[in-house]
Amino acid sequence: MKENLLIYAASDTDADLFHATRFLAVDPVVFLQVGRKKILILSDLEIGRGRAQARVDEVLSLSEFDRRIGKGVPVDRLIGRVLRERGVRRVTVPHNFPLELADRLRAQRIGVTPRPAPFFPGRVRKTAEEVRWIEAAQRAVEEATGKAIDLLRRARVRGNKVVHGGEVVTSESLKRVINVALMERNCVGKDTIVAPADQGCDPHHQGSGPIRPDRTLIIDVFPRSGDTRYFADMTRTVVKGKASPAVKKMYAAVKEAQEAVFGSLRAGADGRALHREVQEVFRGLGYRTGPRGKKMEGFFHGTGHGVGLDIHEAPSIGLKGTRMEAGAVVTVEPGLYYWGIGAVRLEDMVLVTRTGCRNLTRFPKELEV
Amino acid sequence: MKENLLIYAASDTDADLFHATRFLAVDPVVFLQVGRKKILILSDLEIGRGRAQARVDEVLSLSEFDRRIGKGVPVDRLIGRVLRERGVRRVTVPHNFPLELADRLRAQRIGVTPRPAPFFPGRVRKTAEEVRWIEAAQRAVEEATGKAIDLLRRARVRGNKVVHGGEVVTSESLKRVINVALMERNCVGKDTIVAPADQGCDPHHQGSGPIRPDRTLIIDVFPRSGDTRYFADMTRTVVKGKASPAVKKMYAAVKEAQEAVFGSLRAGADGRALHREVQEVFRGLGYRTGPRGKKMEGFFHGTGHGVGLDIHEAPSIGLKGTRMEAGAVVTVEPGLYYWGIGAVRLEDMVLVTRTGCRNLTRFPKELEV
Repeated sequence: MKENLLIYAASDTDADLFHATRFLAVDPVVFLQVGRKKILILSDLEIGRGRAQARVDEVLSLSEFDRRIGKGVPVDRLIGRVLRERGVRRVTVPHNFPLELADRLRAQRIGVTPRPAPFFPGRVRKTAEEVRWIEAAQRAVEEATGKAIDLLRRARVRGNKVVHGGEVVTSESLKRVINVALMERNCVGKDTIVAPADQGCDPHHQGSGPIRPDRTLIIDVFPRSGDTRYFADMTRTVVKGKASPAVKKMYAAVKEAQEAVFGSLRAGADGRALHREVQEVFRGLGYRTGPRGKKMEGFFHGTGHGVGLDIHEAPSIGLKGTRMEAGAVVTVEPGLYYWGIGAVRLEDMVLVTRTGCRNLTRFPKELEV
Repeated sequence: MKENLLIYAASDTDADLFHATRFLAVDPVVFLQVGRKKILILSDLEIGRGRAQARVDEVLSLSEFDRRIGKGVPVDRLIGRVLRERGVRRVTVPHNFPLELADRLRAQRIGVTPRPAPFFPGRVRKTAEEVRWIEAAQRAVEEATGKAIDLLRRARVRGNKVVHGGEVVTSESLKRVINVALMERNCVGKDTIVAPADQGCDPHHQGSGPIRPDRTLIIDVFPRSGDTRYFADMTRTVVKGKASPAVKKMYAAVKEAQEAVFGSLRAGADGRALHREVQEVFRGLGYRTGPRGKKMEGFFHGTGHGVGLDIHEAPSIGLKGTRMEAGAVVTVEPGLYYWGIGAVRLEDMVLVTRTGCRNLTRFPKELEV
């Protein structure tokens, strides 16, 4: 028996709903799939646009229900009504379906079963069109990152600062260069990372303050395209001035680990095994991972994640890694982080194929700029 | 007895979690409040930053649990363990707590009770600092909207197009002007609306294609500040060229409805009554609301919503409106939409006070540009 599906979410934040409907809504809407029939229930505010744009079989009007069963009927009553009218007694919902609504539906004797992520496993395998959309976003990432690095190249070292156009170059000023360049191509750069020196050792530190000469600088850019809603993701590490021998060795090690993954990555590969390969490259080169005081050092994050309508989606390359599938787009982003020494991460985005992988990233890897 | 609270979410998308911790995480993390003690459980990737930044009493390490109870322990087992160790048998969770996790916790005999939104009712009442953050974002909105309108003023009408610098002015080009200007002030403009002519009659249509002379153009800008994560929200309607007498009358009616709300808005006012006031102004002026074919026309959306860490939050002015509280920041945004005639919406953001409201918006209201 075919499952009946229910989603209650805003497609602006819920990629499954957007994937199922290609309809963008900033407030939660009801989506049902009964057999093969896709149904959206929309307010008066959304219904005109929904009927024109949503790739569904039926769009029901919330206000017609209001007229039939009373104004302002709660959404659980509305859903219960629609399900009963269509003879549906059980629905499968996403793992993150809102609990309060689930409890209210169950109180109406509707079976509500959460499905572990991913809700639509088919989202992993990108169509040729989706790959083009991701590549287009990646071109914007490369242009924006290029502008920031060009600015660093043109800048001058003055004491422990980097100066350009009479101004001290900071994390904030480089993020502005990157995010404005992205926006000029209708890509939204949110939480862009430009992390100088030790800040880079916290891999999710967004960075702040002056860029330091002769120290590592991590630039991690992962915008969403406003045209297509697909993401791209790339990280480069640079040093303005001279890199220390220790940093040069780390950079080479990270590149070697990344290339090892490129060599093993293909449909069917196990994401945990790929992650172990990175760990072994680092261990073999003498890089130790573990706590140092209250902080971590070495390599202590995942090796990669799927990219698509979400910035982090299936499959995963890491401790809890999953199996690679042909058509998946994944990042490969090993890194090494040692307080006081430097932080190096290199991230490319690749398309998994039956026999290997194709790198979607065209940006060069140069340490000193 | 004090409730114990549990959130499992990414604070990048969950404003309650960000509000409780002021810690930004793009992947889901565990937040617990046991008695008055706030606890975060973070992966190695987040823990350094979490210990430095999060406004909580305790930060637990996910990987220490891994060492104690086995690698890759599922999050429900982890939460169950922490709760049992602290003698907690019941937790209150947000209404949108993920169902699968709730089911797994309940299977461990932990009571999980969803609380209807808002989870932290105190979020409604903004501190003076939060109001300043919203106002700062609003200044960026005004600068960006001003740039788009200035461009329209300088542009020339050529047939049924508007031309500037040798290019046809489009929804897309004006959105780029607005979003780039926002990004220059580190505000992220997402889903910005620049909806020409009949597109404006679908209030959530983002707009596309050439701007039409002598027709209405709705500009609705609602970015989030990258510095503070607070939103601002403003809508203006303009006509490049000459507005028709019908549009001029609609514009005056919308302004009158908005001013009626400004006159009645104060702490204690009922959001449903304020919405009815708008409906009555329009009805009194002869504007009819209802379906026309498969589309709606007249005034068929809410009058306003709270603004803060979410773009749509409590309180609400509408059919399902709620009570106004002193310190709330709300939009007042009546509109009139008639296919073939025009679409007019005016939106200001105001601070609710004990005796009235203070308009946080400084941008002029001029129809013809």
